[in-house]
Amino acid sequence: MTTEPQPATETPAQSLPRTFTRDLAAHDGQQVRLQGFVHARRDLGGVQFVVLRDVSGITQCVGSGLSLPLSESSVEITGTVKAHPKAPGGYEVQISDFRVISAAVEAPPVEIPKMEWNVNPETMLDYRVVTVRGLKERAALKVQAELVAGFRDHLITEGFTEISTPKIVSAGAEGGANLFPIDYFGHPAYLAQSPQLYKQIMVGVFERVFEVAAVYRAEEHATSRHLNEYLSLDVEMGFIDDEEDVMALQNRVLAAIMVRLRERAGAEFALLGATIPDVPAHIPRITLLDARALVTEKYGHQVGGKDLDPEAERLLSQHYAEEHGSDFVFVTKYPRAARPFYAHPDANPDGTQSTDITRGYDLLFRGIEITSGGQRIHDHAMLMESIAAYRLKPESLEGYTEVFKYGMPPHGGFAIGAERLTAKLLGISNVRYARAFPRDRHRLTP
Amino acid sequence: MTTEPQPATETPAQSLPRTFTRDLAAHDGQQVRLQGFVHARRDLGGVQFVVLRDVSGITQCVGSGLSLPLSESSVEITGTVKAHPKAPGGYEVQISDFRVISAAVEAPPVEIPKMEWNVNPETMLDYRVVTVRGLKERAALKVQAELVAGFRDHLITEGFTEISTPKIVSAGAEGGANLFPIDYFGHPAYLAQSPQLYKQIMVGVFERVFEVAAVYRAEEHATSRHLNEYLSLDVEMGFIDDEEDVMALQNRVLAAIMVRLRERAGAEFALLGATIPDVPAHIPRITLLDARALVTEKYGHQVGGKDLDPEAERLLSQHYAEEHGSDFVFVTKYPRAARPFYAHPDANPDGTQSTDITRGYDLLFRGIEITSGGQRIHDHAMLMESIAAYRLKPESLEGYTEVFKYGMPPHGGFAIGAERLTAKLLGISNVRYARAFPRDRHRLTP
Repeated sequence: MTTEPQPATETPAQSLPRTFTRDLAAHDGQQVRLQGFVHARRDLGGVQFVVLRDVSGITQCVGSGLSLPLSESSVEITGTVKAHPKAPGGYEVQISDFRVISAAVEAPPVEIPKMEWNVNPETMLDYRVVTVRGLKERAALKVQAELVAGFRDHLITEGFTEISTPKIVSAGAEGGANLFPIDYFGHPAYLAQSPQLYKQIMVGVFERVFEVAAVYRAEEHATSRHLNEYLSLDVEMGFIDDEEDVMALQNRVLAAIMVRLRERAGAEFALLGATIPDVPAHIPRITLLDARALVTEKYGHQVGGKDLDPEAERLLSQHYAEEHGSDFVFVTKYPRAARPFYAHPDANPDGTQSTDITRGYDLLFRGIEITSGGQRIHDHAMLMESIAAYRLKPESLEGYTEVFKYGMPPHGGFAIGAERLTAKLLGISNVRYARAFPRDRHRLTP
Repeated sequence: MTTEPQPATETPAQSLPRTFTRDLAAHDGQQVRLQGFVHARRDLGGVQFVVLRDVSGITQCVGSGLSLPLSESSVEITGTVKAHPKAPGGYEVQISDFRVISAAVEAPPVEIPKMEWNVNPETMLDYRVVTVRGLKERAALKVQAELVAGFRDHLITEGFTEISTPKIVSAGAEGGANLFPIDYFGHPAYLAQSPQLYKQIMVGVFERVFEVAAVYRAEEHATSRHLNEYLSLDVEMGFIDDEEDVMALQNRVLAAIMVRLRERAGAEFALLGATIPDVPAHIPRITLLDARALVTEKYGHQVGGKDLDPEAERLLSQHYAEEHGSDFVFVTKYPRAARPFYAHPDANPDGTQSTDITRGYDLLFRGIEITSGGQRIHDHAMLMESIAAYRLKPESLEGYTEVFKYGMPPHGGFAIGAERLTAKLLGISNVRYARAFPRDRHRLTP
């Protein structure tokens, strides 16, 4: 540890409470004690500058006769706050006491203060244990923490109960593809792709439930929008009329998230040059069939498959942004062919059950799907028919189908991928940078 | 679905907002619309009784000419609220309209309303998808949800940031035993035992962090206090002086949890006949060495090994309950032999580094350990020495040790097993009943 002789201080540093850099304005002219990391440093011989980074921000400190430790060292600085228009935050601290708490023993592999690193993205992820300290990296994870808190707190005000369901499962919720196998005491098991079936079961207990937990998709392809391990924000509610109740809930949840981001993450959005979207009181809706026709007629884009392709998602979002001023649009009435077995069939105009349209929907935000949701089948006979129609093995779903013998109410829900929503809110090009330690096809460390 | 002819209603049921059973007192003499499950039912020929269960409680409803569906069916009841001293909650609903929303097609495998089921516990877990609807089962999970919320909300008020760290890892945090292997695209990987190393890394980013997530222990033995998948409430804080700062934080967190349980889970504690403990402003502390001596001298119990055994934990708790009126006691200054490599050595009285005592502690609550915590090593050289002393392979910990080159501040933290604390608070004999869908040596379903 480096501890150089320092000028004597009037007040012993330890007797002052710690001040955070964001609160300096309230201490103008006073002595404060700061703790944090050496974000940047410059030694001009007679005078030394240290930019101190703490959890709340950065501040410039200036002293003399200091022997500066390497960047990223933890330090404690005692000094006097002075207004300084050119300093970040408008204040500077004139150092009277400088103590190295824990000295870095190497210079970081990248210059942490730089807002753009001219480094191969894979290298940056290799050094993630320290690159995650970068202001932009930190801002993304802070926004995600507030987003998750906004999701959760709003649901609790609407009477939802938090649940914790198994991630070690004996079969997949969606039928068996893309599962990571686990050796469970010699028995085959898998990592859960989704809490779908469990959250439905828990509607029988608490009526309205949510879970915030990691889920796992063993998808081999590497894209900018997929992770193999991601944080899923899951919701399920009972006693609904149809999927409109679920969409209305999601509309309210999104509005509450944006309120919280405005209150608690404004600085992070500013740092990243991103804007917090307005959530319309009633997010516009369009059926999938009409959406496909719209992008063909308006933009000349032919959509393949049964769903929307990424280009169609982008064009549809563009249309709703331009024509309706909305960053969000619900795409409704998905065909059975693009939905899992538990999706509730829609009703035909004559009241009979549709054989090809479901009450499933997607939510697009700024050109990308961020949610799938909908009403689920609650009737036991209808569920068993659907399992047969999807050519799934009923015995592999036995524990799940069992509960539908016991009066499950009509219910539905949705799931939001936290990293994808974070990335899209902040304009981060790859979803991997919205996770502290991402897992992808080739990455198991750090 | 069963829909029998019903007496005509004066107000169409759909026009009334839904009322929850807990709110009936505010509607005395008024018409209400309830939704929920048929908890119990009795048909006396001329008159029918239905006990309706919704998320907020149960209420007795009475009507005539009704054809009652099976128990657990979802129903909607419209009727008039009347004070009725003998009914649960003090009110009864006189049914004017009874609608089956979703009829059960089988009777449940156990009688849900019974407070004790005379059934093999394994059978009860086999049917967990419906037995979890039992009032006691539901109460335990509700208490756990509030406990977790209390933990999280308090930490947020103290400036902690929520993180989400990988559960798919390339090596174990504690050295390699008791890991579940995963096939990760053909590469060996494991389920994380703890977010320990990742939460330490994140102290370099946010200074104070927490995570609520499942962790995995491939322990073969079946006990009443262990689960193979459990919810870990993890905390790590930087810029501490020593482990006393961590214990003081944990003291505040526990107090906040109990405040929330009093506010939001009083009914659940009453149902389970359990009491919410008082958390002393300063939980008593005793060193492990003194604790071992105390149980030997006072109770004649010889303690084997380096730690406390379950009987010693029970006796020590008994002593602190009787002599100090505290359900909690910190056992401090654990020996290195009973702690992992990252535990920070204690200082000897002369200021030198202890070779055998750490700044690790356990917290006992009502006779059982519910937390391990302590200060961690933050100095790179000290960490590398410790890894060598523990005969671990430094290369298997490379991603982790790397960050200690970059000025990590002194830090420490703790972890609470949510199910174990829930079980102990509620007097539940086996930790498996404090989890919705437990995983144990022989149980992968439901």
